[in-house]
Amino acid sequence: MSQLGKQSIQLDKPVYINGSASVVGTKEGEGPLGLLFDMVGEDDMFGCQSWEEAESSLQKDAVYLALQKAGKKPEDMRYIFAGDLLGQSIATSFGLMNYQIPLLGVYGACSTCGESLTLGSMAVAGGFADRVVCVTSSHFASAEKEFRFPLAYGNQRPLSASWTVTGSGAFVLGAQKEETTRARITGFTVGKIVDYGLKDSMNMGACMAPAAAATIAQNLEDFGYEPEEYDKIITGDLGSVGQKVMLDLLREKGYDIADRHMDCGIEIYDAESQDTHAGGSGCGCSAVTLSAYILKQLEEGNWKKVLFVPTGALLSKTSYNEGQSVPGIAHGLILEIPDELG
Amino acid sequence: MSQLGKQSIQLDKPVYINGSASVVGTKEGEGPLGLLFDMVGEDDMFGCQSWEEAESSLQKDAVYLALQKAGKKPEDMRYIFAGDLLGQSIATSFGLMNYQIPLLGVYGACSTCGESLTLGSMAVAGGFADRVVCVTSSHFASAEKEFRFPLAYGNQRPLSASWTVTGSGAFVLGAQKEETTRARITGFTVGKIVDYGLKDSMNMGACMAPAAAATIAQNLEDFGYEPEEYDKIITGDLGSVGQKVMLDLLREKGYDIADRHMDCGIEIYDAESQDTHAGGSGCGCSAVTLSAYILKQLEEGNWKKVLFVPTGALLSKTSYNEGQSVPGIAHGLILEIPDELG
Repeated sequence: MSQLGKQSIQLDKPVYINGSASVVGTKEGEGPLGLLFDMVGEDDMFGCQSWEEAESSLQKDAVYLALQKAGKKPEDMRYIFAGDLLGQSIATSFGLMNYQIPLLGVYGACSTCGESLTLGSMAVAGGFADRVVCVTSSHFASAEKEFRFPLAYGNQRPLSASWTVTGSGAFVLGAQKEETTRARITGFTVGKIVDYGLKDSMNMGACMAPAAAATIAQNLEDFGYEPEEYDKIITGDLGSVGQKVMLDLLREKGYDIADRHMDCGIEIYDAESQDTHAGGSGCGCSAVTLSAYILKQLEEGNWKKVLFVPTGALLSKTSYNEGQSVPGIAHGLILEIPDELG
Repeated sequence: MSQLGKQSIQLDKPVYINGSASVVGTKEGEGPLGLLFDMVGEDDMFGCQSWEEAESSLQKDAVYLALQKAGKKPEDMRYIFAGDLLGQSIATSFGLMNYQIPLLGVYGACSTCGESLTLGSMAVAGGFADRVVCVTSSHFASAEKEFRFPLAYGNQRPLSASWTVTGSGAFVLGAQKEETTRARITGFTVGKIVDYGLKDSMNMGACMAPAAAATIAQNLEDFGYEPEEYDKIITGDLGSVGQKVMLDLLREKGYDIADRHMDCGIEIYDAESQDTHAGGSGCGCSAVTLSAYILKQLEEGNWKKVLFVPTGALLSKTSYNEGQSVPGIAHGLILEIPDELG
C-alpha cells in the first residue's frame, strides 16, 4: 500500500467486501429503502426485555446474516471490529459475546462504521488476518435515552433534530475475491476531530458538516482527484441541515460536489410522511444504507466508484450538560465495483 | 508477520516504542511507583472545571510528554489510537482535539491500553504509518460517577472493590529503532469476550480474571511457549482478588505462572496504607505502570521479555442496572528489550 499525503492510504491490493447484511426496525422498514433490507423487525424490541438488549440483538443478527451470505462461519473470522453509540459500547459486548471472535472495540460516534471498515481493511491488507467482520449499530430508543431524553418524557423535537436509525450493518472483509464479493475497498482517509464550537445536540448535522467537508477535501487532495472521479460522494448522517452546511464549506475549499452528493440520513426516511425532520442518524444509518443500497449499486455496476464518508458527533450527555461543544469526525473509504475495469 | 494459531500475530520486524510518558494524580504520586511517573498533579482537578475535563487534560499532557521524549511533533504522527472509560470516550475527544492527528477511537474498557498498542502495532508493522501514538486514561472521580456512585454520595466500598487510577499513559510507536527506543513489540494476542456470569461491579477483578487467563493461555499455546519464556507475565488491573482467581484458572489449564506474575493494579498502590482495597484499576492503571515501571525494567535489561496483558470489564451503569453480567476481555502484547540479543 502507499501512504498518500497526511491522512490517506491507497491499497495496491484491494480488500474485498465478501458479504454484508442489514437488520432494521419498523420505521426503517417503512421508509424508501424498506424493501432492500435483509431483515425488518416486527417491532423495535426484537423480542428482548430492554432497548439495549434489542440493539445487541440487531448486531448479533446482522453478523449472523453477513456470515451466511459470505458462506463463512464465526471461526473463519480472525477479528471482529465493532462498536455502537451506547456508553461503554454495551450493545456490542452483549451482542457479540457468543460468537467468540477476538474483538477489537472501536468508537467514532456515528462514524464508527467507517472506522471499523478502515481498521478491518488495515488488518486484512496488512496480512494480520485473511478475513474479518465489521459491525456497528444504533437504536432510536436506546440512543434517545443515552444522549437526550427517555422516550417516555415525550419532549418536542426541533426541525434540525435527526432520527436515530434502529439498525445494524455487518460486513465480512477478505483478502481474496470470492463469488459473493459485493465491492472492493481500494483506499481510505482517516479523519481528524473538527470543532467549530457548535453546542446543539439537536442539530448534529451542522456539528458534523465541517468534519465531513474536511475529510472529503483531504481525500480529493491526497489522491489528486477531482470530485468527478467518484460517481457518488456519500456522507453518513448529515441530514438536510448538515448537507447544506457541508456543500457550502466544500465550495469555499473550491469543490462543488452538489451534483454527486448523497447522504444516507436523507435517503433512509421520507422526511415528510415519516416525520423524521432533518433525517436519519446513528451508527446504524450509514451501515445499513451501505449494505442494502450502496453495495447493491456497485454490485450492479450502476456506480463504479464512490467515496463513503460516515460522520460522527463526539458528544455525550455529560459533555453536553457540562457545556462542551459537539465536535465532529468523519472517515472516508473508497469503494469500487467487485471487478477491476479491464 | 505470521498469523499464529487462532488469535496471535508474530511480528517478524518489531514495532518500536520510541517514547512514552505517564501523568498521574496525587494518590498515585504517593504510591510505591510515585517517583517514577513523569508528572504528578498538584490536585486531581489538574486546573480544570470538571473531572471529565481533568481527565482530558491528563491525555493531552501524556501525549505532549511522550512526543517530547520521542523527539517528535504531533504532525509526525500519522494516527492516534486513543480511548478512555467514559461514555462516548469524551476524555479522548476533548483532550486530543487540538493535536489534529487523525484519530481512531478504541474501546476495550480497562484493556484499552493493550488494544490501542495492538492496533498501533498493526498500523506500523503493516506499513500504514511510520509513526503513531497510542494513549489511554482514567480518572477516579469521573469513573466513580460514570460506573457507580458520584463521590459526594459517600458510599462504602467493599474490600473486593478496586480504586480507579487517575492517570494517562501515552506511547509513540515507530517502524525504526531510534536513540530513544524503550522496548520492542514483537507479537500480540487479541482477546475474546469471556463471561463467567459474575454480576458484581464492585468485584471487577474476579469478573476479568477468566479473560486474563484465557488470553495468557492462548498466547502460550499459539507461540508454543512455556511460562518461563517470559521474565514477567503482567496483567492490567486484576487486583488481589482477581489475581487469585486467574492463577487458579491457569493452573487448571496446566500453567503455573505464580512465580512470574505481576499485576499493575497491585503494584501501583500500597493497599494497606492507601486504603485502596483490592488494588488499582482503570485504563490508566496499566498504561502508567507500563510507561513508568515496565518499560524501565526492559530498558535497563532487568527483564528481557514480558507478556503485558491489560484487562477490561465490559460493563456500563445501564447494563449493570439492567441486571446484565460483567464480561471481561484481555489483550496481550509481547514486549522485549530495545536491542535484539546477539
